[in-house]
Amino acid sequence: MSETDNSMSLIVFSNDFDKAMAAFILATGAASSGMSVSIFFTFWGLSLLRKDNFSRPGKSLIEKMFGWMLPKGPSGTGLSKMHFMGAGTGMMKSIMKKKNMTSLEELLSMAQALNVRIVACTTSMEMMGMKKEELIDGIDIGGVATYLAASKNSNINLFI
Amino acid sequence: MSETDNSMSLIVFSNDFDKAMAAFILATGAASSGMSVSIFFTFWGLSLLRKDNFSRPGKSLIEKMFGWMLPKGPSGTGLSKMHFMGAGTGMMKSIMKKKNMTSLEELLSMAQALNVRIVACTTSMEMMGMKKEELIDGIDIGGVATYLAASKNSNINLFI
Amino acid sequence: MSETDNSMSLIVFSNDFDKAMAAFILATGAASSGMSVSIFFTFWGLSLLRKDNFSRPGKSLIEKMFGWMLPKGPSGTGLSKMHFMGAGTGMMKSIMKKKNMTSLEELLSMAQALNVRIVACTTSMEMMGMKKEELIDGIDIGGVATYLAASKNSNINLFI
Repeated sequence: MSETDNSMSLIVFSNDFDKAMAAFILATGAASSGMSVSIFFTFWGLSLLRKDNFSRPGKSLIEKMFGWMLPKGPSGTGLSKMHFMGAGTGMMKSIMKKKNMTSLEELLSMAQALNVRIVACTTSMEMMGMKKEELIDGIDIGGVATYLAASKNSNINLFI
Repeated sequence: MSETDNSMSLIVFSNDFDKAMAAFILATGAASSGMSVSIFFTFWGLSLLRKDNFSRPGKSLIEKMFGWMLPKGPSGTGLSKMHFMGAGTGMMKSIMKKKNMTSLEELLSMAQALNVRIVACTTSMEMMGMKKEELIDGIDIGGVATYLAASKNSNINLFI
Repeated sequence: MSETDNSMSLIVFSNDFDKAMAAFILATGAASSGMSVSIFFTFWGLSLLRKDNFSRPGKSLIEKMFGWMLPKGPSGTGLSKMHFMGAGTGMMKSIMKKKNMTSLEELLSMAQALNVRIVACTTSMEMMGMKKEELIDGIDIGGVATYLAASKNSNINLFI
């Protein structure tokens, strides 16, 4: 039996633009209100943490193919619905800009400034052939044990 | 450190028919068993709360386009898989009818009758250009702070 | 007010290969670390529990159609993204094999060996016209009340 901390742990599995927005709005909102927040990026979600211009030498062909097909960071992501070959996503981003809403890139920086702990999943990194140097700075890497340690006493656990 | 209430907080992000069914079966089941339940409708999920026949004047062209493309209420939604241009979804709905299963529209009314708190996300409303009068009656509106206040002490938090 | 047990309850709604992998990696990781773990398979997730070679007589035409279209067990599932008519999924499986990563089939057996409780959702079974004998051995069946009883005191609740 255990009590819960004042904390939130998110698993971001998806790299959809809209789901990433939801995750970062929740994370920055919770961190601003004094909660300690961790986000675990697994599988497709990992591509949200990729550096914009980085090519690691020595990848296998199949790892290279994954590298080409996955978005590089927040700017390459699309909507989970109505993406319409980019038109729907572009429309959504232009609405957000017009209404002065915070962009996904800004939310990611804001989360890091608010000490949101960002963890890249080691199993997913291995599966997709990604190394730590391909990912943005200031993040941790860890597996399921790291996730369980953080989420076990969290008030709010979500899989996004 | 805090203990948890006897409560459930759901975020409904999707407007897929099947995921909405899952959310309302969980919510009405929990409310029937005496738990206090809140559902936060964000992003695409917001369209589940739209009134059937409502056109708000004064929308921008881009807001009108979103209005046309998004389903109006539960009846306009489709399956997340095997939608098949409506055929799969229609098939599923006809099976449910034949087996006397509760429809999505009925589950929504049942949830309201059981005092499930329904909250429309203000950030998503702004993003999609929706106003409160376009949404069904008897609901609250709120942002991430409203969600955190409700979910912080909930036993069960899910993102659907 | 109640305290939480040392336990995890997952709802597996999806039958995507990647999401199923995530669910079983979390479940086996938690069970290995001494947590008691339950997984509730609902809707599409139910097809992960289907026996490989089983045809139940007496199905209606529409139930047969669902039977044909849904995957039979873990080996028939595909990625949620980049499935590419099977090519993407096959590529992912071959990478996993090359890197000696545990397959989805092995993770399912491992979960059962670690006493992870596997529950098939009765409402979904009814909706899809599936009977208990079509599903793998050693599992429970139950509805929303079974889920609530397990998840109410769980530290970690996720909807996958």
